[in-house]
Amino acid sequence: MRILLTNDDGIYAPGLKALRKEMQKLGDVSVVAPATEQSAAGHSVTLLAPLLVQEVFEDDNTTFFGWAVEGRPADCVKLALLELLKEPPDLIVSGLNAGSNAGINVLYSGTVAAAVEGAFFHHTAIACSLEYTKQAKLDFPAAAGYARQVVESILANQPKKGSLFNVNIPPLERGPVKGIRVMPQNVSVYEEKFDRRINPRGRMYFWTSPEFRCPEPHPDTDVTALAEGFITVTPLKFDLTNHAALEPMRNWEWTFQG
Amino acid sequence: MRILLTNDDGIYAPGLKALRKEMQKLGDVSVVAPATEQSAAGHSVTLLAPLLVQEVFEDDNTTFFGWAVEGRPADCVKLALLELLKEPPDLIVSGLNAGSNAGINVLYSGTVAAAVEGAFFHHTAIACSLEYTKQAKLDFPAAAGYARQVVESILANQPKKGSLFNVNIPPLERGPVKGIRVMPQNVSVYEEKFDRRINPRGRMYFWTSPEFRCPEPHPDTDVTALAEGFITVTPLKFDLTNHAALEPMRNWEWTFQG
Repeated sequence: MRILLTNDDGIYAPGLKALRKEMQKLGDVSVVAPATEQSAAGHSVTLLAPLLVQEVFEDDNTTFFGWAVEGRPADCVKLALLELLKEPPDLIVSGLNAGSNAGINVLYSGTVAAAVEGAFFHHTAIACSLEYTKQAKLDFPAAAGYARQVVESILANQPKKGSLFNVNIPPLERGPVKGIRVMPQNVSVYEEKFDRRINPRGRMYFWTSPEFRCPEPHPDTDVTALAEGFITVTPLKFDLTNHAALEPMRNWEWTFQG
Repeated sequence: MRILLTNDDGIYAPGLKALRKEMQKLGDVSVVAPATEQSAAGHSVTLLAPLLVQEVFEDDNTTFFGWAVEGRPADCVKLALLELLKEPPDLIVSGLNAGSNAGINVLYSGTVAAAVEGAFFHHTAIACSLEYTKQAKLDFPAAAGYARQVVESILANQPKKGSLFNVNIPPLERGPVKGIRVMPQNVSVYEEKFDRRINPRGRMYFWTSPEFRCPEPHPDTDVTALAEGFITVTPLKFDLTNHAALEPMRNWEWTFQG
């Protein structure tokens, strides 16, 4: 099995390294990942700048590790599929992200966007993220082991080509993982604040606050199951159409003068 | 009616100016838009850098035009709602974008992401884009007039708070607009290419090709109706869950060792 591995934390991120090691147990892994951190890059792509590509090697300086791209996670997947890989992958895996990507964070996430980009091209793609608390350092090797088990389970069930999954792993320092739950994406808004400041030239600026909490998650969603200590798996799609609204809207009165 | 207007082409873009003029016929318009072009920014947000904000004035240098934000379209909507606007808007409008946002481009689009961000906060939001051809300059004032008619029609049908719409206007130089069609988002992949080059230091880089075509759009979608000369309106949602897959996946065998 050929696996394309990418992420949004950058090619040197420890989460990618740990996930690569686990994915190598399942097949041949090619890494094409951003050269620098691209957190919250969403599904942005680079149109106006050139995408520089550099070969990266392992610590021995001779074993090829992967391609670093001066671009976004979605750029990496496009370049991998259209230019860099000799053969198409059987699976695309994105992560392991430092921080969960649940609820509406799914839309901000570069990790998820990379998987979505793969699904555009009809490849099965899985985004993997690890929630963190401020209490402990992230244990990427252990979390990557869990991610591999989830990937193995998904593949064992032979999903249709182009299937898209979002996997979140709970903070491991809170105690043993309780199991795996298939859950929908939570859609309620996050609570967030800005810190308003004035710079030495008198100009107003804002920092986003590190507090980004979901005060009222819907029960039985990725956000709640993750908080309860379960690994969550959410099947995703990239058709944003609100299909239920199509027919009612066709019966609306549309006033239009050409 | 209070209207928040934003875009992804930047606060000085002619499409925003034209749409502001038309929206002022419907209510009080507040502009909070990126300081610079943010095309294909997707739903990225700024976490690692400060968001500088500057007041922008009309040509007379005294009439307040709006706030320019050194950030992404979604940052602008967050800042507007949480910090800059004195009262919450009744409607959020994003555009008028130079270039259509149909099919999977909906996911790359900063114009659409700004509207999605507004819907996160339970505001009704409408993204408006104008397709261009290479044959003619974009007629933003005429297109903004069409956008206003669509916005008026949507509001006349009293959509539920938090409703989200994606509006695309066909190239006006091709002939008269044929009418308005309510259509789902096309989901087929675009055909794209990269131009591989070597820089003077011997490093490989790629330019994305300006050709970005959808060779096989599904019939009866935003992409096909737009190509036929109709204004398209697509109701959107931001729950990416593939709900049809949830129950089958819950019956999968999940192997997990803690």
